[in-house]
Amino acid sequence: MKSIKKRDQEYIKQNNLKMILDIIKSKRPISRADIVKITNMSPTSVSRIVGSLIDLGLVRETEAFSSGVGRKAVLLDIDLESVMTIGVYINKHLISAGIVNFAGEILYKASMSLDSRDISSESTIERACDLISKVISDLKIDKSKIIGIGVSLPGIIDFKKGIVIFSAPLGWKNVHISEAIERQLEMNTIVDNDVKLEALAESLYGVAKNSGKTALVNFSVGVGSALIIDGEIFRGVTNIAGEIGHITIDPNGILCNCGRRGCLETFIVEGNLIEEANKVKKVTDIKEIFESANNGENWAISILDRAVTYMCITINNIVCMYNPDTVVLSGSLIEANPEILNLIEKKCETLIWEHLRDTFTVLYSGLKSNADIIGPATLALNTFLSFEV
Amino acid sequence: MKSIKKRDQEYIKQNNLKMILDIIKSKRPISRADIVKITNMSPTSVSRIVGSLIDLGLVRETEAFSSGVGRKAVLLDIDLESVMTIGVYINKHLISAGIVNFAGEILYKASMSLDSRDISSESTIERACDLISKVISDLKIDKSKIIGIGVSLPGIIDFKKGIVIFSAPLGWKNVHISEAIERQLEMNTIVDNDVKLEALAESLYGVAKNSGKTALVNFSVGVGSALIIDGEIFRGVTNIAGEIGHITIDPNGILCNCGRRGCLETFIVEGNLIEEANKVKKVTDIKEIFESANNGENWAISILDRAVTYMCITINNIVCMYNPDTVVLSGSLIEANPEILNLIEKKCETLIWEHLRDTFTVLYSGLKSNADIIGPATLALNTFLSFEV
Repeated sequence: MKSIKKRDQEYIKQNNLKMILDIIKSKRPISRADIVKITNMSPTSVSRIVGSLIDLGLVRETEAFSSGVGRKAVLLDIDLESVMTIGVYINKHLISAGIVNFAGEILYKASMSLDSRDISSESTIERACDLISKVISDLKIDKSKIIGIGVSLPGIIDFKKGIVIFSAPLGWKNVHISEAIERQLEMNTIVDNDVKLEALAESLYGVAKNSGKTALVNFSVGVGSALIIDGEIFRGVTNIAGEIGHITIDPNGILCNCGRRGCLETFIVEGNLIEEANKVKKVTDIKEIFESANNGENWAISILDRAVTYMCITINNIVCMYNPDTVVLSGSLIEANPEILNLIEKKCETLIWEHLRDTFTVLYSGLKSNADIIGPATLALNTFLSFEV
Repeated sequence: MKSIKKRDQEYIKQNNLKMILDIIKSKRPISRADIVKITNMSPTSVSRIVGSLIDLGLVRETEAFSSGVGRKAVLLDIDLESVMTIGVYINKHLISAGIVNFAGEILYKASMSLDSRDISSESTIERACDLISKVISDLKIDKSKIIGIGVSLPGIIDFKKGIVIFSAPLGWKNVHISEAIERQLEMNTIVDNDVKLEALAESLYGVAKNSGKTALVNFSVGVGSALIIDGEIFRGVTNIAGEIGHITIDPNGILCNCGRRGCLETFIVEGNLIEEANKVKKVTDIKEIFESANNGENWAISILDRAVTYMCITINNIVCMYNPDTVVLSGSLIEANPEILNLIEKKCETLIWEHLRDTFTVLYSGLKSNADIIGPATLALNTFLSFEV
């Protein structure tokens, strides 16, 4: 026996409320009769549960409409503005914050640049709070409808305690960010790793909506991955699962910012590609490497070829370990250079193990940077939405 | 919404029966009062559920005993012989089969060698059926108590359909093994990958009994891994999750039996180590490499040093991806050469990412080859035990 989960009446009630709310959310608008069909529950039970959701203000009846002959049908929809959450994203260069409605749609967002010379946790959290206050007052909404704040940032996060254990890009260690924001804004706050939250957003509202097991790989200043199983983030015991950037590839390879040699991300991240390029030509942006490659310069072709090889290896390794039905590719390295996708597809043909080749679909991030807002807002919604009537 | 799970009365009933049975199994003997404490359920509910389990013949009351003063307590225990399953393990060299009781204990087992020149699926399945019949008749038990057969073998298995998709060690492709055994022996049969089942056994009955997230890595003719979360095998969409042996390490490395270059297992498996050794000295068994290393022969030290490095890399990579609380090491490479454990421990100190170093415990297989019988027998128990009163 590994875990004792009590399945009592209260549990079933909460679970049924959540299940039917999720059905209405994903199939909206939908009739009570169709919910009965989907759930195999009795019409009486469905009506009772829908009634509770309406009492909670989460669900509303749409105007009756006629589908031709017979009685007009009343459909159910979620009340989009009944509950809202705020999603905040912090990286080395910018903070963005947005208000997200009950359907995972961004109603309003704003962002501010950060001066990378001052990204101390104190001043950055201060600015994030200012930005959150600004989006709330800009949108002129009833603050009581906002049930919480979700924060997304790169690094190792103790999401239960709301602590950034370590963020290499921000240079933060043991920052109690949730507590700091809660104290300042008096709103429930939760924080999690950016790649995990991006995967959550793509899985619930983005390109992977129809996937039950979604892996996402983000190629940018680092390489990270995340797995979403049936809408839940796969975390491991200390929320570190998915750190594919730090699997070791070459124990004698170049030094990684984690202090060890030859991590997978050392072969891929932009900084390393630019550093290599500078041995041949003065380059400050990865776009210049692509240009040189397009001009037939062999050094640039060689740099990109190796990076693409290791991006395909990343995909192979993630499918070997997680065996997902979908792999979503995202991150600045891809977004800024969409031509890289063809190179990846071509090379994957030989680098993916044959027994895995037809088991998954590769998709490209649909939400792009919006996932950075929708992801943490969704985590806040899932965490702070209560079903107490 | 990702999955709709109906939590109805029947579900709760089944779940409660299973939960309380699991508690009795793991804490046996135990009083009804202690079950009430563990579950927070009412004494009436616990008594009712225990009553059903007694009616099913799965649980029995032990003789009353006195703990000193007061009324004598009646304790509950599982009826060890109420339900039995058969575990079968097949590899290139041998078939073993055993009868396992309700507590995961092997009552009796037998094995036979295979001539690796004839391991066709037909003749091997034939022999496995003979061996199963032999253990049943040897033990002289009531055959009706055996609720099913579990089969464990190396390879990619469609466990839902009972098909061995591909087994490199056996050279099998698309073998409908469950159907063949069911036809011949008229008993429910299920088949799964050997490493997954070994992990299940260690997690439920072996060294990882107290772990909620157990990863197991097996180093032998191949390198495989598996993850058990709360007693359940983590499978992925096509039951391939955990194939860490085929994550790519060096795209220009030596050829793997999977047809691609530089898979992780090419750096570790015994066959490759022996092949390398033969460039210097005639060697047929890995033990000879250890002997030469102990005699200070540099070539042998170098071969083992590199193998141990990649074994540590395997551990690092699995904890990066799965973030388990426990990593169980097993397989012939370790069992036959226990001195390798010290080398692994020493090298892991530098090769494991610091943020993961204190998040998991490394343990060594407790059940050893018994896991090959207990694992499939447990899968059969979990699959075929029914709670219909």
